Amino acid sequence: MELEEAFSLLSRTPRVLDALLRGLPDMWTRRNEGADSWTAFDVIGHLIHRERTDWMPRSRRLLESGETRPFEPFDRLAQKRESQGKSLELLLDEFARLRSENLDELRALNLGPEDLERRGRHPALGTVTLSELLATWAAHDLSHLHQISRVMAHQYRDAVGPWSAYLGVMQCDGHSS
Amino acid sequence: MELEEAFSLLSRTPRVLDALLRGLPDMWTRRNEGADSWTAFDVIGHLIHRERTDWMPRSRRLLESGETRPFEPFDRLAQKRESQGKSLELLLDEFARLRSENLDELRALNLGPEDLERRGRHPALGTVTLSELLATWAAHDLSHLHQISRVMAHQYRDAVGPWSAYLGVMQCDGHSS
Repeated sequence: MELEEAFSLLSRTPRVLDALLRGLPDMWTRRNEGADSWTAFDVIGHLIHRERTDWMPRSRRLLESGETRPFEPFDRLAQKRESQGKSLELLLDEFARLRSENLDELRALNLGPEDLERRGRHPALGTVTLSELLATWAAHDLSHLHQISRVMAHQYRDAVGPWSAYLGVMQCDGHSS
Repeated sequence: MELEEAFSLLSRTPRVLDALLRGLPDMWTRRNEGADSWTAFDVIGHLIHRERTDWMPRSRRLLESGETRPFEPFDRLAQKRESQGKSLELLLDEFARLRSENLDELRALNLGPEDLERRGRHPALGTVTLSELLATWAAHDLSHLHQISRVMAHQYRDAVGPWSAYLGVMQCDGHSS
């Protein structure tokens, strides 16, 4: 894991989600895949909560306490509460601002290769390295872009008629939600 | 299928892919999932070939000939030939230009609800409607965004360590390639 490669991805995600979602009709952003699955709107709220409570707070905990104090568990339902009454546009702005602040903070740490090997403790996964945490931050963006594409495509499941057999995204069973 | 909803997505895709891919290190854009699977670079070439030979040419064929003349079959390997020696940046520009021209042409057709129900013949799927063809155009964008996210995440499969179990995209088996 090269830090600059992770940065290059992490810094692009707010613009990608903005280009995809800002101003889109609600049928694309406010519909889910049924039951209590997530909408694109829900995903942005989740990304915001991770910016606030996961990536940099866990990096700081790891650098300060090593494996002696595990990370705080993450609340996967926080966005249902925190996004209530907000517009998607507001959430996109909030996400972009938090991501930018977090990347500034990460850069200011001036991490070297030896720092990336430092270890912390995940409450369920056990020992993890800073390198794994930062790679997961970037891969987590991609996992939710993958999810948003699928949730949106789901809205056209009937509209595409027989072509659904040819569209890979329509075969995806939602392992990423 | 509401034409304006499809437009809203189709018009955004070039900017989404540009925000995601332009200037990214090659390790994200020029690596695949092994064997003869596609890179993000390959996918952009494929989207270009579809803009040239699929969506609007098939729409015209349907409107001109109905079910009497089937669509031309699509060449899924054309981009291997056509993208050779080109930069990703050039391909992103080419895709944006072709998409814009095609959407201008689609708008100029001034399609009404009755036009969307008109029928054509797919060489393998048989009878399809114009509505299904245009919905597939939009869903196809999402299917390849879904694929690109997965191909890129694959490059961090080892880097994320034990977190791979929590990342939906790492469980995706490539049904969309």
